[in-house]
Amino acid sequence: MKEFCGTSEITGARFSIYPMSDRFVEIILSSLKEVDTSKVWMGTDDVSTCVRGRSEHVFDVVKTIFLNASKDGDHVVLNATFSNGCPGDSAGDTFMAEDSVLMNHELTKKISQEVATQFALYPLGIPGYMDVIMEQIKTVEQQGVFNGGVHYASRLDGDANKVFTALESAFEGARKSDSSHIVMTVTMSANSPTRKEGQ
Amino acid sequence: MKEFCGTSEITGARFSIYPMSDRFVEIILSSLKEVDTSKVWMGTDDVSTCVRGRSEHVFDVVKTIFLNASKDGDHVVLNATFSNGCPGDSAGDTFMAEDSVLMNHELTKKISQEVATQFALYPLGIPGYMDVIMEQIKTVEQQGVFNGGVHYASRLDGDANKVFTALESAFEGARKSDSSHIVMTVTMSANSPTRKEGQ
Ligand SMILES: [Ca+2]
Repeated sequence: MKEFCGTSEITGARFSIYPMSDRFVEIILSSLKEVDTSKVWMGTDDVSTCVRGRSEHVFDVVKTIFLNASKDGDHVVLNATFSNGCPGDSAGDTFMAEDSVLMNHELTKKISQEVATQFALYPLGIPGYMDVIMEQIKTVEQQGVFNGGVHYASRLDGDANKVFTALESAFEGARKSDSSHIVMTVTMSANSPTRKEGQ
Repeated sequence: MKEFCGTSEITGARFSIYPMSDRFVEIILSSLKEVDTSKVWMGTDDVSTCVRGRSEHVFDVVKTIFLNASKDGDHVVLNATFSNGCPGDSAGDTFMAEDSVLMNHELTKKISQEVATQFALYPLGIPGYMDVIMEQIKTVEQQGVFNGGVHYASRLDGDANKVFTALESAFEGARKSDSSHIVMTVTMSANSPTRKEGQ
C-alpha cells in the first residue's frame, strides 16, 4: 500500500498501565512523573497514552513508565501496541531530529523486575508475513527470554530489561522486512499473585 | 499465505480483564463463574485467557466476562485480541459444530454499561489492507457509537452492548475481505474516574 504510506520512519506506541490496586491513580501519576519524555511526543486520553518519536526513545519511555509503576511490588500490567510505517503517520515528526541517547537508561538499568510477557508481530501489506514473524521469533530465541508459543502470541519470561531488549530487536528486525507497516502487541505482567499454570 | 492457512473458520480471542482494585482476584474469579462457556474452548494462564470457537460465541463470552466484572462499578479494563484465520489454527475445532444460540444473551442484554473503547483492525497478507480497514470503519460509523480516529486506533463510545455489536460487525465484515487472517485489538474501559480529555 505504498500510495498510503508516508516516508516518515516515526515509531509510535499506544499503551496503558494497569495497577491492580485501589491506589491505581497514584501509581500511574507517579510513574509518569519519574520519566524523561523530552525526546518524544506524548498524548494521554481516558483510555490510553500515545508516545511517538524515534523507535529507541519510544521503547525507552514505555519501559520506564512500566518499571516505575511496578517497582514497589504492586501487580501491574502493561498493554502496548507498537507501530511503525502507519499510513499517513506524520504528526510529531520534529522528534525524529533527536539524537539516540536514551534519557532513562541510568534509571531503568538499576531496576530488576521479573515479568511474564505475551507478544505478537503483525507485518502488514505483504503475503509473506508469516516468514517475517518466524524470522523474528528466531531472533528472540537467541536472547534467552523466549518461552514458547501460545495461541495467537509468543511468550517471554525473565528480567524486564532483557525482555524489552528482545521485543525491541524483534520489532526492529521486522522493520527491515518487505513490510512497510509493522505492528507489535505486548502484554507484560509484573508481580502477579497467580503462579504460572499450563495452558 | 494460503500455504500456511488452515481451512478452519475458528475464531479466537486472547484477552485479559484488569480491575483497578485491591479486590481484583475476587472480581476476576466471580466474573468467570457467572459466564456460560459451554460452546467455546477456553484456557487461562498467568497473563491472559484464550477463548476459541464460533465467532459469535467468542464475542458473547468475552463481552459477558467484561460486563460481569464491571457491573458493580469498579474501574475495569478489557484488553482483547480477536483473530480469525491464523495459520495452523485448528485446536478446538470440535466447538465449530455448536449451534448459534448465544448462551449469555439473556444475562448481558439486561446490563447497561457505558464504555470508552479504542480498537484497531489488522487484515494480514494483502497489500490492500487499508481499503479493508476503511470499509469497516464505514460499517462501524453506521452503528451510532463511532467517535473518531486517534493515532493507531479508532474510538467507540457508548453502551457496551452496542459497542460490542459494532466491533463484531467490523470483524465479521473484514473476514469477508481478501484477507484470510484478520486480527482486531480492543481496549475497553468502564467506570474510569478520568473524564475524557482531548488527545
Ligand atoms: Ca476467512
